[in-house]
Amino acid sequence: MPQAILYRAQDLTDYMVRFFRKLGVSQPHAERAAEILISADLRGVSSHGIIRLHSYYGSRILKGLIDPTSPFTTVRESPSTLLIDGGNGLGMVVGYHAMTTAIEKARHSGVAFVTVRNSNHYGIAGYYAMMALPHDMIGISFTNAQPLVAPTYGRTRIIGTNPIAVAAPALHERPYVLDMATSIVPIGKITVYDKAGETIPEGWGVDKNGVVTTTPAEVLKGGALLPLGGSDIMRGYKGYGLGLMVDIFTGVLSGAAFGPEVGAPGRDAPANVGHFFAAVDISAFRDLEGFKSDLDSLIHTLKEAPKALGQERIYIHGEKEFELYERNTREGVPLLVEVVKGLREAGEQVGVAFDLEAVGETSGEEE
Amino acid sequence: MPQAILYRAQDLTDYMVRFFRKLGVSQPHAERAAEILISADLRGVSSHGIIRLHSYYGSRILKGLIDPTSPFTTVRESPSTLLIDGGNGLGMVVGYHAMTTAIEKARHSGVAFVTVRNSNHYGIAGYYAMMALPHDMIGISFTNAQPLVAPTYGRTRIIGTNPIAVAAPALHERPYVLDMATSIVPIGKITVYDKAGETIPEGWGVDKNGVVTTTPAEVLKGGALLPLGGSDIMRGYKGYGLGLMVDIFTGVLSGAAFGPEVGAPGRDAPANVGHFFAAVDISAFRDLEGFKSDLDSLIHTLKEAPKALGQERIYIHGEKEFELYERNTREGVPLLVEVVKGLREAGEQVGVAFDLEAVGETSGEEE
Repeated sequence: MPQAILYRAQDLTDYMVRFFRKLGVSQPHAERAAEILISADLRGVSSHGIIRLHSYYGSRILKGLIDPTSPFTTVRESPSTLLIDGGNGLGMVVGYHAMTTAIEKARHSGVAFVTVRNSNHYGIAGYYAMMALPHDMIGISFTNAQPLVAPTYGRTRIIGTNPIAVAAPALHERPYVLDMATSIVPIGKITVYDKAGETIPEGWGVDKNGVVTTTPAEVLKGGALLPLGGSDIMRGYKGYGLGLMVDIFTGVLSGAAFGPEVGAPGRDAPANVGHFFAAVDISAFRDLEGFKSDLDSLIHTLKEAPKALGQERIYIHGEKEFELYERNTREGVPLLVEVVKGLREAGEQVGVAFDLEAVGETSGEEE
Repeated sequence: MPQAILYRAQDLTDYMVRFFRKLGVSQPHAERAAEILISADLRGVSSHGIIRLHSYYGSRILKGLIDPTSPFTTVRESPSTLLIDGGNGLGMVVGYHAMTTAIEKARHSGVAFVTVRNSNHYGIAGYYAMMALPHDMIGISFTNAQPLVAPTYGRTRIIGTNPIAVAAPALHERPYVLDMATSIVPIGKITVYDKAGETIPEGWGVDKNGVVTTTPAEVLKGGALLPLGGSDIMRGYKGYGLGLMVDIFTGVLSGAAFGPEVGAPGRDAPANVGHFFAAVDISAFRDLEGFKSDLDSLIHTLKEAPKALGQERIYIHGEKEFELYERNTREGVPLLVEVVKGLREAGEQVGVAFDLEAVGETSGEEE
């Protein structure tokens, strides 16, 4: 029995567009949201792709918790800054608009910052950062998210996994694309270990008393994730500080929710998520070719550096995802059997049958 | 016998001014550099304060490796961006000028980025980020530094400890001030363990084969520090990615050195360090009071959250340093006996005797 079934990315995209259309999302908005979700599946970040179609978006539109018309509005604007109210619409729709505007503004002013309040989950942060690349700019995006991470010396979930994404273009090399949660691992990773009956590495999470535990169920039931770094001795307060920085730029600077007030997708209230986007026109600082060839040089130096015992390769951030993107585009996007089951059920509920033609199957793998 | 001797901050500052003046630094530049170095000692970051007066600055001016006139020049400029050539001068002098300019530009354009190339060690990154606070702005500063950190799966020193500093103003609470190296610990921390004959926690560093070691001497002799996160399973590639991000914004974007080419203070060649500064005018996005009271609220929530077993306090970034600043301003700056010895020797060499009146002594402590 296969663990994962392969589907053409285009088929999955088309399906998501039909799904969103059925829920009252306009054609261009549906295409935008589907494109951003499939980009996660293609890049191997399946936790942020089609698996969330119903739980994060469809079910919340049905409950009236997300406005499918995504009526975002400009709140405050200058040549290099913008605050947008997301109108409680789809995060992908306002996110794309926000980053597009940041890029346009940076073309004139060299650098531009855009914040968004009153939004929802926007998929992978890296998508927006990467939007800057074809424009020869550096792109940045952060978002806050439902509380899951305990601060250093705390024991409750106060900060989201608040990701940081930064993309910079190289010349011949692939671009640098950092897209990282500021927690060590996402909560879904803890669930995977719990289901498999395995222990988690010491430092990934704490139990309800704030004590580091290797039992995943203790993190899931009343415990919390730890920030990057983990415990105090490993300087987990730095990851905590980065998560807080993201909350300041996304929640506090925009007037969105922050800390424990950011809505979880499973909570029956508007999420009021905050996002942050920045674009930096490289040519405002130095000649583009110089930047790109220097980044190539830095990447070469890293890739060709001596490897640790037993290691064969040093990676640049984004490299694994580009390789998965190419493979999944070519061979199909793998969806776990249980994910397909969930899509079939959601499709029935919404009235858009998930009956796509599979193009293969795999024994499954952890991306 | 005391481990540390206490001196008045003003006396130490005045001494550093005389020291720099003797080496050909102008009065305003000497005052600037001294003020930034003493701020590190006052905030308890003694590794970046007066201890470096000769090794990072004085000895290099004497050798002709730093230009004491700090002849920085504007290379490229727009209303919201600026690239400065530091003229191989003091990092503190060009750094102060760069951040001041970022703040002035952000007052008009909402956000401004300034990069600096051809510079030297600039002290603590947090000083520059905090310069934004009295202007009701968010401040950011990064710098690259001599290579000390191995990339994930590597074993040689390629990336600096490349710090990230971000400061944001609150209303009644103290500001949020993140000032963190992107390595787990600085190299000096490994030296301290080595001298004390103690083992280091697993994950702080690797030996010459890239294998995690608990023997500090193995990190010091041919090994390397690990990035925040540490080993692969704890997601050390995120800390590696942040260190790389800092190198892109400081080294690659400015045209400074990057990666292993950034000069070490002990190397007889210009360092060509790169810096990055940003200022964000909060009122370009939302009303200042709203931002500040929301940040207060986030800080309250964190401080009042339930504590982990055995812990009594949850800290906000910068809080410990503000408390040390107040204590050291009141009681004197503690300098280890061996640091005082080094200052006396350097003073003799330069011709500015270090003969300050002590105001007390302590049994020493690790800040």
